[in-house]
Amino acid sequence: MSTPKVAVIMGSDSDFEVVKKCLIALERFDIEYEVQVISAHRNPQKIFEYAATAEERGIEVIIGAAGKAAHLPGIIAGITPLPVIGIPIQTSFQGGLDSLLSIVQMPSGVPVATMAVNGAENAGILAAQMLSIKYPEIRKKMKVYKIQLNDEVIAKNEKIQEIL
Amino acid sequence: MSTPKVAVIMGSDSDFEVVKKCLIALERFDIEYEVQVISAHRNPQKIFEYAATAEERGIEVIIGAAGKAAHLPGIIAGITPLPVIGIPIQTSFQGGLDSLLSIVQMPSGVPVATMAVNGAENAGILAAQMLSIKYPEIRKKMKVYKIQLNDEVIAKNEKIQEIL
Amino acid sequence: MSTPKVAVIMGSDSDFEVVKKCLIALERFDIEYEVQVISAHRNPQKIFEYAATAEERGIEVIIGAAGKAAHLPGIIAGITPLPVIGIPIQTSFQGGLDSLLSIVQMPSGVPVATMAVNGAENAGILAAQMLSIKYPEIRKKMKVYKIQLNDEVIAKNEKIQEIL
Amino acid sequence: MSTPKVAVIMGSDSDFEVVKKCLIALERFDIEYEVQVISAHRNPQKIFEYAATAEERGIEVIIGAAGKAAHLPGIIAGITPLPVIGIPIQTSFQGGLDSLLSIVQMPSGVPVATMAVNGAENAGILAAQMLSIKYPEIRKKMKVYKIQLNDEVIAKNEKIQEIL
Amino acid sequence: MSTPKVAVIMGSDSDFEVVKKCLIALERFDIEYEVQVISAHRNPQKIFEYAATAEERGIEVIIGAAGKAAHLPGIIAGITPLPVIGIPIQTSFQGGLDSLLSIVQMPSGVPVATMAVNGAENAGILAAQMLSIKYPEIRKKMKVYKIQLNDEVIAKNEKIQEIL
Amino acid sequence: MSTPKVAVIMGSDSDFEVVKKCLIALERFDIEYEVQVISAHRNPQKIFEYAATAEERGIEVIIGAAGKAAHLPGIIAGITPLPVIGIPIQTSFQGGLDSLLSIVQMPSGVPVATMAVNGAENAGILAAQMLSIKYPEIRKKMKVYKIQLNDEVIAKNEKIQEIL
Amino acid sequence: MSTPKVAVIMGSDSDFEVVKKCLIALERFDIEYEVQVISAHRNPQKIFEYAATAEERGIEVIIGAAGKAAHLPGIIAGITPLPVIGIPIQTSFQGGLDSLLSIVQMPSGVPVATMAVNGAENAGILAAQMLSIKYPEIRKKMKVYKIQLNDEVIAKNEKIQEIL
Amino acid sequence: MSTPKVAVIMGSDSDFEVVKKCLIALERFDIEYEVQVISAHRNPQKIFEYAATAEERGIEVIIGAAGKAAHLPGIIAGITPLPVIGIPIQTSFQGGLDSLLSIVQMPSGVPVATMAVNGAENAGILAAQMLSIKYPEIRKKMKVYKIQLNDEVIAKNEKIQEIL
Repeated sequence: MSTPKVAVIMGSDSDFEVVKKCLIALERFDIEYEVQVISAHRNPQKIFEYAATAEERGIEVIIGAAGKAAHLPGIIAGITPLPVIGIPIQTSFQGGLDSLLSIVQMPSGVPVATMAVNGAENAGILAAQMLSIKYPEIRKKMKVYKIQLNDEVIAKNEKIQEIL
Repeated sequence: MSTPKVAVIMGSDSDFEVVKKCLIALERFDIEYEVQVISAHRNPQKIFEYAATAEERGIEVIIGAAGKAAHLPGIIAGITPLPVIGIPIQTSFQGGLDSLLSIVQMPSGVPVATMAVNGAENAGILAAQMLSIKYPEIRKKMKVYKIQLNDEVIAKNEKIQEIL
Repeated sequence: MSTPKVAVIMGSDSDFEVVKKCLIALERFDIEYEVQVISAHRNPQKIFEYAATAEERGIEVIIGAAGKAAHLPGIIAGITPLPVIGIPIQTSFQGGLDSLLSIVQMPSGVPVATMAVNGAENAGILAAQMLSIKYPEIRKKMKVYKIQLNDEVIAKNEKIQEIL
Repeated sequence: MSTPKVAVIMGSDSDFEVVKKCLIALERFDIEYEVQVISAHRNPQKIFEYAATAEERGIEVIIGAAGKAAHLPGIIAGITPLPVIGIPIQTSFQGGLDSLLSIVQMPSGVPVATMAVNGAENAGILAAQMLSIKYPEIRKKMKVYKIQLNDEVIAKNEKIQEIL
Repeated sequence: MSTPKVAVIMGSDSDFEVVKKCLIALERFDIEYEVQVISAHRNPQKIFEYAATAEERGIEVIIGAAGKAAHLPGIIAGITPLPVIGIPIQTSFQGGLDSLLSIVQMPSGVPVATMAVNGAENAGILAAQMLSIKYPEIRKKMKVYKIQLNDEVIAKNEKIQEIL
Repeated sequence: MSTPKVAVIMGSDSDFEVVKKCLIALERFDIEYEVQVISAHRNPQKIFEYAATAEERGIEVIIGAAGKAAHLPGIIAGITPLPVIGIPIQTSFQGGLDSLLSIVQMPSGVPVATMAVNGAENAGILAAQMLSIKYPEIRKKMKVYKIQLNDEVIAKNEKIQEIL
Repeated sequence: MSTPKVAVIMGSDSDFEVVKKCLIALERFDIEYEVQVISAHRNPQKIFEYAATAEERGIEVIIGAAGKAAHLPGIIAGITPLPVIGIPIQTSFQGGLDSLLSIVQMPSGVPVATMAVNGAENAGILAAQMLSIKYPEIRKKMKVYKIQLNDEVIAKNEKIQEIL
Repeated sequence: MSTPKVAVIMGSDSDFEVVKKCLIALERFDIEYEVQVISAHRNPQKIFEYAATAEERGIEVIIGAAGKAAHLPGIIAGITPLPVIGIPIQTSFQGGLDSLLSIVQMPSGVPVATMAVNGAENAGILAAQMLSIKYPEIRKKMKVYKIQLNDEVIAKNEKIQEIL
């Protein structure tokens, strides 16, 4: 078994239902990943150590999912030189505006590649696109994937035509 | 000179103009403080160490000011057992809604005592109120301060009566 | 039985379901409390008298929970020299934005230590942190609590590893 | 000189620039008024006493102007049986959303007749409309005023026709 | 039977569930009312005629309830010299922010006394307060009502004390 | 001179600076228009009569511009069978969110074709597109216009290439 | 069978439940339409070709429905000279604020006639109003429709009178 | 001269002032780039062709900057298999909420790596981080850059200490 290229970190195990879609997306592109539950606020030392050593352990992209005052992806991005993708988890506060702003409004110098609220699937796809810069076989799969996306909607359109 | 009881941390030196009002408020209650510019995202190791050792150095309250994806007070609150006060700095995004939500919407277990946007003066007063639990002389000054607040508005009212 | 150190005031008995988490948090730190239902708008005289006498009755921290145009914690803060913590109760209006802004946006001179929407548990923890300035035994319990928080997430992480 | 029918209360003398338009509106309908600067947070006892005695002193309508966590009109409305009109003062936070929500989102039982942000002129007009229920001469002036409003726009329309 | 003093207008019969609380409030003060379903957008001529003749028919206060782009109370206010109260009906868009802003943000010259979202009960109480300027028996009932409000919360407080 | 096909109505003459861009757009397509200042709230009878007779006077599209509680386009749309375009005027409240929601959130049965905040130029272009359904010469001009839009950006791109 | 005058495009087949009301509205005015599921993001080439050829195929109005980052109507409007109507689909993010802003805030030169969130019925009615500029029989039906709208509310009012 | 690895696309030349910071960031990591002004709405064919051929021309990351209904990055992401970074340009509407939501709320299958409002510098840094997956020399520079960020704040902290 090869080393994981992508680390998927959740701030809370309650985020797993959403994060699962990210894992499925990564699997679609045959990308090895590891999953961790680490809270930026409850495991401060662990998150620091994890982020500081991710690169040397061979991780190439980090995905962080968190809700409310969602500091996880930003804190990781402050520590690691790797690209970090953020998934804002939906909350009962304006549909997750708190999570979104806490992740996307990062100050200059420390970007987080922010997805839509609950956009876990897209986090997996973006990780694949980043990796496809280096790995041609992922690029190939990405092109196939885009054709599939196109075909799926065309099939749905045909179904609607039958209903009408 | 006695040790500082309050640590005031800014995420950026550009926050100093706002934070100054906090220092003036602390001085009004004769509370010793220290001021630091430490970025949660640019000085991750330093913020970790600073927060982890603040209590043993005699700090009793920590105030953190930050803007945009304002993670500073929340990250400090995750590390220290001390009470942490957060000052959301005003931004061009909805008047600082990003700063406010990033600070106030903390998950269970890790509170940040959040002030109004740019509410630096109130951060100093709240720190004094917290310390007044232990220090009777600060409580006394707080009572005098509340009488002054009352008197100031009464004086302003008298001025308005003259204008009309 | 010792006197209560913390007063927990609700604007309405319908807030009790949320406020209960605050009481459980206080109990975790063995902090005596009293609970009152007093509406800033329906019991104006009582809230005035209650807040004006809380300190002399030995209360050291006041927690106020209220929803919508949530004036309760701010009104109390205007009367008492004690530190006041505000819990914005969730509403059907933008997830409680009305409660949050009515509590957090206090004018200079009269701070309210604002928690997340429905952040009752954190109100209890913050009260404990404030009291831990004076009472070393609460500080000790706070340090244990932070270790427990850390351990809980580590346990959850191990569980997720088993699922995958 | 007759007794004032309307009391105009500002939370801060900095609101006077906005509140002046309210006074001009009241004068247009020849309504006697008094103006007070009383802060709900800084003069808690005074606001309580003022609101509790307003009716017996002959006041028939109370207008309260306040910004940010704008508790003033709501607190007055909790104390007096008189109708209370609220003017949310514009702030740098989302154009005054904080003031608006703190005033308009009152709980059942204690209404505040809320105006637009900075809608001081309309507060004066609404007070006149309320008083016109009892005083026929104000009703007459109100009808004249509505004709003037209509005529003013018609005059402006004619001017625009000339420009084109 | 005496003539109705208050007219309650709904933009849609689907608002009736909310508006009922307004009628109950009016009945508590023994105020005669009439209820109409008139849409500002679907019955433009009727709303115009209704509002233009309300005063001469003896109506003293008009209450308008509407949702979304809620023009009803504002349009009525443009036509009648009477005071107009607006009830923003809750919607699926940000908890009724559309209704609230469409009603409260009226231009200078044409106020609408705006209630909280779904604040129908308060609309009835405010109408009673307006009428109490003229009718002493309503003022008396209003004072009794405020005592009842106070007593109700005190009773609820006692109940909570028993639970604890 | 031919009859105007488009009526442009402003709620206030202060909207003229924005509305001018709409007139310039109409002129680009050689479309005759008339301009009126009519307030939905200050000229209720006039707006009713104007809207009720616009179609028989040969008007084919009505454009309404208004700010804050912007009822003008919706009220017109309730009266006329013609298509109505709404221009929300920018305000100091969240950049014109009040104007936007008051215009766009129309109930079923009475649409207003809503433009961006201050989108006066687009209102003129949309009116031209509507008229181009009937008038082939406007369609031709619209196609030329789209080519010009394309060319303008290409020219700007060339300029940027020179700077770099 | 005559050619369709209106094209109704959905970004996803999950929008069909909402879009159906648009089709029913078009049928009420006997307007032929075609329905397509085409995603701006998944079928980029197809949407480009579809929009580029719609006019020559006899389409006179295009309606686009989409949610979240709702680019569909705007992209179509960039390609075709025809008028384009946009239906923002409700989402879990602030009731569809994302969809609404992505559709309505179009830059100068490329308007989209934006409906309320989920305002599909109104999209059909607006399309009919646009076509009524050219087709007198649709205008006639529009006038009948407006009378029906008026009558329906009057009938509902009568029903409410019976209940009271 | 080597081929550009990064394409920076602006929706309008007025975005250049913001986008410049992105170019400076790319230069800091010695990354070749090209800059284009292409509007998704005004140059629909060109944006389609550009995005469809970017990968074969050797581009490895695309950055798109746009404001208001900011469709540019999302449309590019629909066409290319490359990773796409989006820069929401600040507007007068709620500080750029329109731009942010139009870019970040992308549907499943088509991610855009979204930056803060006006976060152009971070777009350049994120592009460098993505490229660093493949190019070790960029990774090395990224590590140096993070040390510089850390040092800069430490220097600023020292300066503040001198002022106090």
